[in-house]
Amino acid sequence: LSRHRVAVLPGDGIGPEIMNVTLEVLRRVGEHFHVEWEFAEALIGGAAIDATGDPLPMESLAICRSSEAVLLACVGGPKWDSLPNKQRPEAGLLRLRKDLEAFANLRPVRTFPQLLDASPLKRDLIAEVDLIIVRELTSDVYFGEPRGIEFIPEGNGEREAYNTMSYRESEIDRVAKVAFELAMSRPRQQLCSVDKANVLETSMLWRSRVDAMAAAYPQVQLSHMYVDNAAMQLVRQPKQFDVILTGNMFGDILSDEASMLAGSLGMLPSASLGNGTFPGIYEPIHGSAPDIAGQNRANPIACILSAALMLRYSLKRPDVADAIESAVSAVLDRGYRTADIMSHGMQQRGCIEMGEAIVETL
Amino acid sequence: LSRHRVAVLPGDGIGPEIMNVTLEVLRRVGEHFHVEWEFAEALIGGAAIDATGDPLPMESLAICRSSEAVLLACVGGPKWDSLPNKQRPEAGLLRLRKDLEAFANLRPVRTFPQLLDASPLKRDLIAEVDLIIVRELTSDVYFGEPRGIEFIPEGNGEREAYNTMSYRESEIDRVAKVAFELAMSRPRQQLCSVDKANVLETSMLWRSRVDAMAAAYPQVQLSHMYVDNAAMQLVRQPKQFDVILTGNMFGDILSDEASMLAGSLGMLPSASLGNGTFPGIYEPIHGSAPDIAGQNRANPIACILSAALMLRYSLKRPDVADAIESAVSAVLDRGYRTADIMSHGMQQRGCIEMGEAIVETL
Ligand SMILES: CC(C)[C@H](C(=O)O)[C@@H](O)C(=O)O
Ligand SMILES: CC(C)[C@H](C(=O)O)[C@@H](O)C(=O)O
Repeated sequence: LSRHRVAVLPGDGIGPEIMNVTLEVLRRVGEHFHVEWEFAEALIGGAAIDATGDPLPMESLAICRSSEAVLLACVGGPKWDSLPNKQRPEAGLLRLRKDLEAFANLRPVRTFPQLLDASPLKRDLIAEVDLIIVRELTSDVYFGEPRGIEFIPEGNGEREAYNTMSYRESEIDRVAKVAFELAMSRPRQQLCSVDKANVLETSMLWRSRVDAMAAAYPQVQLSHMYVDNAAMQLVRQPKQFDVILTGNMFGDILSDEASMLAGSLGMLPSASLGNGTFPGIYEPIHGSAPDIAGQNRANPIACILSAALMLRYSLKRPDVADAIESAVSAVLDRGYRTADIMSHGMQQRGCIEMGEAIVETL
Repeated sequence: LSRHRVAVLPGDGIGPEIMNVTLEVLRRVGEHFHVEWEFAEALIGGAAIDATGDPLPMESLAICRSSEAVLLACVGGPKWDSLPNKQRPEAGLLRLRKDLEAFANLRPVRTFPQLLDASPLKRDLIAEVDLIIVRELTSDVYFGEPRGIEFIPEGNGEREAYNTMSYRESEIDRVAKVAFELAMSRPRQQLCSVDKANVLETSMLWRSRVDAMAAAYPQVQLSHMYVDNAAMQLVRQPKQFDVILTGNMFGDILSDEASMLAGSLGMLPSASLGNGTFPGIYEPIHGSAPDIAGQNRANPIACILSAALMLRYSLKRPDVADAIESAVSAVLDRGYRTADIMSHGMQQRGCIEMGEAIVETL
């Protein structure tokens, strides 16, 4: 019998619903595989603001730090949109990533054969897409200083807003290493680094560090692509990609775009990892979807697959991860669909029913 | 008889080929409509570097300033990729945009009924897409200061690269005004402003200025969208968009992505306009495609349609612009296709033959 302590952060909107379903899946799979869970629930985002005034209370951070992994659903919503920047739900998420030094955000995009018709892209373009985006997560214009909104000197009351896009060599190196190692471990061994080196100094340094690291990974076939071209190529010919490495801002945009290959944001998990000092963070890449919250319409699969990634990467139980992923696939085979991935001839199910079907299959 | 002086900048790669074909089209349409042309050719990009060492020689800038409009093909290529930033072909293009104060880059994306099968997206999602991206073009992280690569104080030789993402209120206002006016003039009167206001101060100021301007345009239905979501929605449900307003960096990424709706980058023109003091710049949104340069394989249509935009916006000849656009459409009706938009049952044509067919049709 093995025992794992996991910090559980349901967050806002559809967060609590999909997290409930995910914990049910973990409990059931735990019985099968003799894994005992200690779920330590903690507040984050709007829920934490409402309860404590802070989107990431000290106590939540302490719970996360003392766990083996963090399982997070999603944060944010219109209720908190008018708060100043540092007090918004998103600020809690960004601080959590930074505090746990989760600098490498892995976003695998695999098309499910059962869902090819749910994608806006033509079937033959997306069949068998299997790529993974490695997004840097604790630097770039998200965190760069100085930042702010100020009056322009002698600007007659005019204001200017500014953020700093920046990368240090060590920040580039550590996330590039994750991407190279990952590329090594995959059959195609291809790595495409995405930047805007024809315009930005930040990208030039990025590109030169990635190039320098390539010598240590002679098996890896490295290429570079400008971000505008990458945004196009992801739609035009997604199968050309194996591992994509990019910065925080570009990765945010490209990974949401890439989710359409899989048919829905509601299918895509992510893992945010550091160097091992702190627990990894596992979260769906989708948001809190306040418009459908509380209606039993959310797709819990991205959250469930995030739990599978947690089992694989942080808890070193690939066997249990496989079991969850197979159960998800089997339920899709049976024709069950939540609203976001519904297509003709399939059977529509709510969030809870989808979870129950997966639990039964396990 | 009217006479127009146009600065012609063929640039690099496929630039000279597509520009030749475009000038032929302009000459022919000029005969019909009694428009006389004075084409003032000038160097830019790699071609200018090779000839003068400067990607935008003073003389080229003078030619542009003394013309009614600037028609530009494309710049860049691997030959100049290792030059330092300010000496690269792209730097010439950026300086031209800045010097001519061309702050509003209009990128219309319309699907051609003849090309629905050339798009990677499913037919019914893209039929009758008709959106236009208004991209700010002379500010943002492209131009923000300070920028550079420096040793970190006490960093043991480690370097940090940085760029500044910034916007002033006046810069936001002037481009937002263009977008609101444009939305007013269109049947749907919708405007979607794209930013990352949940993270960036720059976007917060952007959003608040756009909101403030909305009062002056009560007919316009204004919405805001985060850039990651926009990248997804452009693929998921492109018909939801009418006018999209966004900053320089996000606009670069989103407009290349949106080109896939039309089937190919090779179909999309753009217009870069200021407040009227200087001539507008008209250019395809595609790059110089060095891999196919000189092979008579390039698609000249984006450049030809850019010339049509020039006739419409700068030369106030919508009649002539319409004639060009109809001729392009007629040639597509006849089944002629360049390689990038080739599909089953169509007739493949080279760049020159495509141009000849359009000239004949006029
Ligand atoms: C909620 C937001 C701050 C976040 C981000 O931009 O990183 C989200 O979009 C994501 O991709 O995880
Ligand atoms: C060539 C490059 C500098 C340019 C840009 O990024 O603006 C191009 O991608 C474009 O979109 O016109």
